[in-house]
Amino acid sequence: MPLTPEHAPPLANLASLLDEVGRTFERQLARDLPPVNTLCRHVERYRGKMLRPTMVFLCGSAFGSVGERHVSVAATCEMIHMATLVHDDVLDEADVRRKGQTVNRLRGNEVAVMLGDYLISNAFHLCSRVGDPALNLRLGEVTNTLCEGELLQLSHRDDLSLDEPTYFEIVRRKTAVLIGACCELGARLSGAPEPAVAALGRFGEGLGIAFQVQDDLLDLEGREDVVGKSLGRDLEKGKLTLPVIVHLAGGAGARRERAIEVIRARDGAGLLAELHESGALAEARSRALAIVADARRELAHVPQGPARDALDAAAEAIVQRDF
Amino acid sequence: MPLTPEHAPPLANLASLLDEVGRTFERQLARDLPPVNTLCRHVERYRGKMLRPTMVFLCGSAFGSVGERHVSVAATCEMIHMATLVHDDVLDEADVRRKGQTVNRLRGNEVAVMLGDYLISNAFHLCSRVGDPALNLRLGEVTNTLCEGELLQLSHRDDLSLDEPTYFEIVRRKTAVLIGACCELGARLSGAPEPAVAALGRFGEGLGIAFQVQDDLLDLEGREDVVGKSLGRDLEKGKLTLPVIVHLAGGAGARRERAIEVIRARDGAGLLAELHESGALAEARSRALAIVADARRELAHVPQGPARDALDAAAEAIVQRDF
Repeated sequence: MPLTPEHAPPLANLASLLDEVGRTFERQLARDLPPVNTLCRHVERYRGKMLRPTMVFLCGSAFGSVGERHVSVAATCEMIHMATLVHDDVLDEADVRRKGQTVNRLRGNEVAVMLGDYLISNAFHLCSRVGDPALNLRLGEVTNTLCEGELLQLSHRDDLSLDEPTYFEIVRRKTAVLIGACCELGARLSGAPEPAVAALGRFGEGLGIAFQVQDDLLDLEGREDVVGKSLGRDLEKGKLTLPVIVHLAGGAGARRERAIEVIRARDGAGLLAELHESGALAEARSRALAIVADARRELAHVPQGPARDALDAAAEAIVQRDF
Repeated sequence: MPLTPEHAPPLANLASLLDEVGRTFERQLARDLPPVNTLCRHVERYRGKMLRPTMVFLCGSAFGSVGERHVSVAATCEMIHMATLVHDDVLDEADVRRKGQTVNRLRGNEVAVMLGDYLISNAFHLCSRVGDPALNLRLGEVTNTLCEGELLQLSHRDDLSLDEPTYFEIVRRKTAVLIGACCELGARLSGAPEPAVAALGRFGEGLGIAFQVQDDLLDLEGREDVVGKSLGRDLEKGKLTLPVIVHLAGGAGARRERAIEVIRARDGAGLLAELHESGALAEARSRALAIVADARRELAHVPQGPARDALDAAAEAIVQRDF
């Protein structure tokens, strides 16, 4: 479901543009090979919130008309995102995604690794079909950064001294740059002036960071039947997230020792209790809200109208969601 | 070591072009992140035969001068190849590559999956820097096909009824199209006429198929200390290769039953003995030789000279190698 809450004035053609993304996605992946098509049909079920395509269209609409190139960029970014989900589920040994079984669970890690590669490759192929070298270069930069973020995160696995700046650098790279690029490219393709393009890039990055912090919180305190994916993976995989970093940085002596003990024991309930008690969960949530508030200020560069209102509402929805 | 045997007249600048590929490769992957750089230094050790860059340069030299764009394409194709090696080693649970430990063995599957993604992404980024949309589109097609081949292979795991046409379709997609593209693009960038470009594409595909058959043979009967990588993985991972397919197709009754038994038991020595006895190894080798002979005939489209001689010698070397 698109992240445009009901109280926001919906853009008349957003739903049909998102449908067009779905069709582009399917056409791009379809092959003369039944085993490949079966896998692609499974992965198409992962398309959920369509946050990235929505950002391309809203940022485009704010400055002019939205056309075929927006659809290609939107579908490319969604496909990149889907590839990262498939590989993330391998890394996280996750069993559930969008309330269904993950590819790795259903078909094994090998198939999931190759299917992710197939999605990345098709994303680049789809993007190349637009015929604009600057677009390829920009999205190549984005995927480079995305992988850097994941590699940086892996290098800090079980690192109890991970600090906030490094955490935010990881999140910026692995999650935020792609959403930032969606906003930036959507606006640029509609002829937005470069200062506005840059402002929307910052808006998207802010949203992406807040989105990830919210994901971290859901991984700790969400309900699997509501969120629809495997939870508790961060602790299980030795990823220190913002609430834990805040908690460890704020506590000394016994509190810190206790937290380290529950982390080492992979004791999710124990960790959650500690984070509640210290106020670290509330603190992380308030950071996310502050980041979103900063991001929304960037919308001053965007002409007033339904697209800007929808962007504003989407920013709000990102930190309010429980799924 | 480049696949240009000593008896072939070496192209004066081939060695320096291959060095330039190495430098381009390193520059493309270098980051401000020490953990990323450490991994890239490890993977640069995998650069061995440099078959793909060599093909780009030889096919280019046959028709004209070779320049910066050839180097970019050569480095891109080598990086795509390197990405497939890193992910293949995850799929094959291989421990040894180029006589050193694999990334998955050394740093775990998660790091290997992400490093492979980083290499794919950087390959596309490097290719985008050339600024020629047709190049991006062509290489996007190639990597799509490559992933299709791997997915097709996975869907036939443990499939004892895998037939020759399907085997060759898998090999064409997963191995041959990339080598074919190297030959094709090298020639086209030097202004070769399109019929010659197409002929070199077929030449490269033939080489790629023969290369894979030779790899299959080495996996069965090679010596790990000579080949320098984990062997016996095909049987272990339920991949039926050409000698086995030939053997199963040619045998009925007891011979077929015996072969199925040793395959199911993952009994490498037993399988090798069966394949020797039935002549299936020799038959697979003669298929590879015939494919190379066909490929070499495509060189009639190439002007006589040292580049064509070197291509001819490289084709010969591919089926003679024991590493």
